[in-house]
Amino acid sequence: MKLRESVLRLKPYTAGKPINEVKRELGLNDIIKLASNENPLGCSPMVTKVINELAYQVNLYPDAANFDLKRELAEELGVKPDNIFLGTGSDSIIRAICSIFIDPGDESIMGEVSFQRYEDNTKIMGGNVVKIPMKNHKLDVEKMVDAITERTKILWFCTPNNPTGPIIKKDELFSIIDKIPKDVIFVMDEAYYEYVDDPDYPQTIPLLGKYPNMIILRTFSKAYGLAGLRVGYGIANESIAKYINAVVGPFDVNLIAQNAALAALKDKEFLRKVVELNKKSREYFYEEFKNIGLEYIESQANFVMVDLKADDKVVFNELLKRGVIVRPGHLFEMPGWIRVSTGRMEQNERFISALKEVLKGMH
Amino acid sequence: MKLRESVLRLKPYTAGKPINEVKRELGLNDIIKLASNENPLGCSPMVTKVINELAYQVNLYPDAANFDLKRELAEELGVKPDNIFLGTGSDSIIRAICSIFIDPGDESIMGEVSFQRYEDNTKIMGGNVVKIPMKNHKLDVEKMVDAITERTKILWFCTPNNPTGPIIKKDELFSIIDKIPKDVIFVMDEAYYEYVDDPDYPQTIPLLGKYPNMIILRTFSKAYGLAGLRVGYGIANESIAKYINAVVGPFDVNLIAQNAALAALKDKEFLRKVVELNKKSREYFYEEFKNIGLEYIESQANFVMVDLKADDKVVFNELLKRGVIVRPGHLFEMPGWIRVSTGRMEQNERFISALKEVLKGMH
Repeated sequence: MKLRESVLRLKPYTAGKPINEVKRELGLNDIIKLASNENPLGCSPMVTKVINELAYQVNLYPDAANFDLKRELAEELGVKPDNIFLGTGSDSIIRAICSIFIDPGDESIMGEVSFQRYEDNTKIMGGNVVKIPMKNHKLDVEKMVDAITERTKILWFCTPNNPTGPIIKKDELFSIIDKIPKDVIFVMDEAYYEYVDDPDYPQTIPLLGKYPNMIILRTFSKAYGLAGLRVGYGIANESIAKYINAVVGPFDVNLIAQNAALAALKDKEFLRKVVELNKKSREYFYEEFKNIGLEYIESQANFVMVDLKADDKVVFNELLKRGVIVRPGHLFEMPGWIRVSTGRMEQNERFISALKEVLKGMH
Repeated sequence: MKLRESVLRLKPYTAGKPINEVKRELGLNDIIKLASNENPLGCSPMVTKVINELAYQVNLYPDAANFDLKRELAEELGVKPDNIFLGTGSDSIIRAICSIFIDPGDESIMGEVSFQRYEDNTKIMGGNVVKIPMKNHKLDVEKMVDAITERTKILWFCTPNNPTGPIIKKDELFSIIDKIPKDVIFVMDEAYYEYVDDPDYPQTIPLLGKYPNMIILRTFSKAYGLAGLRVGYGIANESIAKYINAVVGPFDVNLIAQNAALAALKDKEFLRKVVELNKKSREYFYEEFKNIGLEYIESQANFVMVDLKADDKVVFNELLKRGVIVRPGHLFEMPGWIRVSTGRMEQNERFISALKEVLKGMH
């Protein structure tokens, strides 16, 4: 078979076991998953209501234009519907961005510890990823811009950065933004936007006019609690948005997902509760990590990276036996660390208690 | 901006109006849509039940491995789970197939009047589409195989062919199948598989062992009534399936979609009713078209193409005013024709009655 060379270089996907299988195998009834930055409060009841209403109509195609959802988002964000694009999670949009800009041999630049899908999708298009070492677990935006070459098409700024947690602050962004050539795209991936409370977080939408090479990504997966429905969106100048819309499949965001997102947008009270709980959870984690004597990275998202000074694979398995799933750091090239998502307070406490027990057994 | 050349050649997507907007504009309350080959019986009540149960859990990511759905499909089809891949509708899978095989300058071969997305996705990857003229509204499989060159990577066999309706029969397939070089992929797109009642329809799954360059596509959008949820799937040798799984986003089929498809698979009685109604509707259409004196193409799918001998744009608009949406043929390069999906009998009758009225006014 004549598979494309760049595809042969891809790491084939390894199927993970669903949580129910893990339960069966370990004989556990009660598992808490603090591994995927999911929303511990579920979703808005307005979302549930809409899903129930649509459960009889899934034989109908979704609106290929995402007409209503684009209109509502545009109004909410103060842009035009033509500035907006949607996809099956940010994943689908990242793929589309690479489809539009990356020719074989082109480059995109990302942080060494940042969102994996930038790399996968650059490679699918035959491009190469240039990874810039982190600076105290933050994206080194200066070095990222310094690394731009003739072949550079995209810079990936994940802010807050997944999986480490920090944002790119205003002064950092403004110190480099004018050094980015106008024909190089920079992506502000703001998947965790709603959780940020640092007053130094730059508002990027007002910058769109001056920087037509900027693409902003957001999602309904996190603070809105729709990870299971896959609705990512983005904001960019009309020309970029037009081509992303042309590349993303016309029915990428399904019928239930579109309408659930519309309902989620309206429930500001749910969003407020989510953000409030998350802040409380982060602070609880910080406090407890200090008590145990563990270093952590201050996070502006709904997860915290903590340095175990121990084998993260062992800790991961020991936590799993105790019914707590986290993300081990070796997956992010941060062996010795784990990433824990914020949960409800009783889940947070159960995680801390299990962690203490596990570490006591190891030290 | 340095957009890829092949992307600049794409026709940007033009947003259509949702049905509710059309209703408002035309002041219509009651519209029937026989335009998108949707299932007129809705979906199985077992699907609705599962959706209602999951409406509280959409904050959780879908299973990235599609573990349960692959296992059930594999059992149903008599293949291994590793032979199966899933995506947000066939659309997403067609995109993935092109991502894997099409380098800039490569070719794929399709029928002149066949599924549009083969062309779009070949172009996104920088490839060229070779369109072979239809032979009496059927795919000319012999000419398609004759057109293979050094640059040919994929043959698209849509069977039943959308939008014309006929299948590729056993003797036609077997007369060309051994002439296809082993390093050229041929895709049997069987999206309308369940509707076929022609005994000469070849069963392709048993051929997988002998033809590792064959990819079979099916979908839950049509006979299973899940168009709104976007679940396409395919069957191929493990090596191809592995790379398609690596390219399709890990959460492409969302939580509700995966579980709805699982439920849909189990309800054979719903499927039986759907297929029965469809057969009845096709025969009703044939009979009525004969009465009106219109020629049509015999279809093995859930739609029929009919030759109006009149301007299809005018007929489309006149039908729309009467609350009936169909697909005008000029969109498929078949001006003067319309494609009508089978509906419930009362919908079919309303369409025929509206069509008679419209044509009477024109002739």
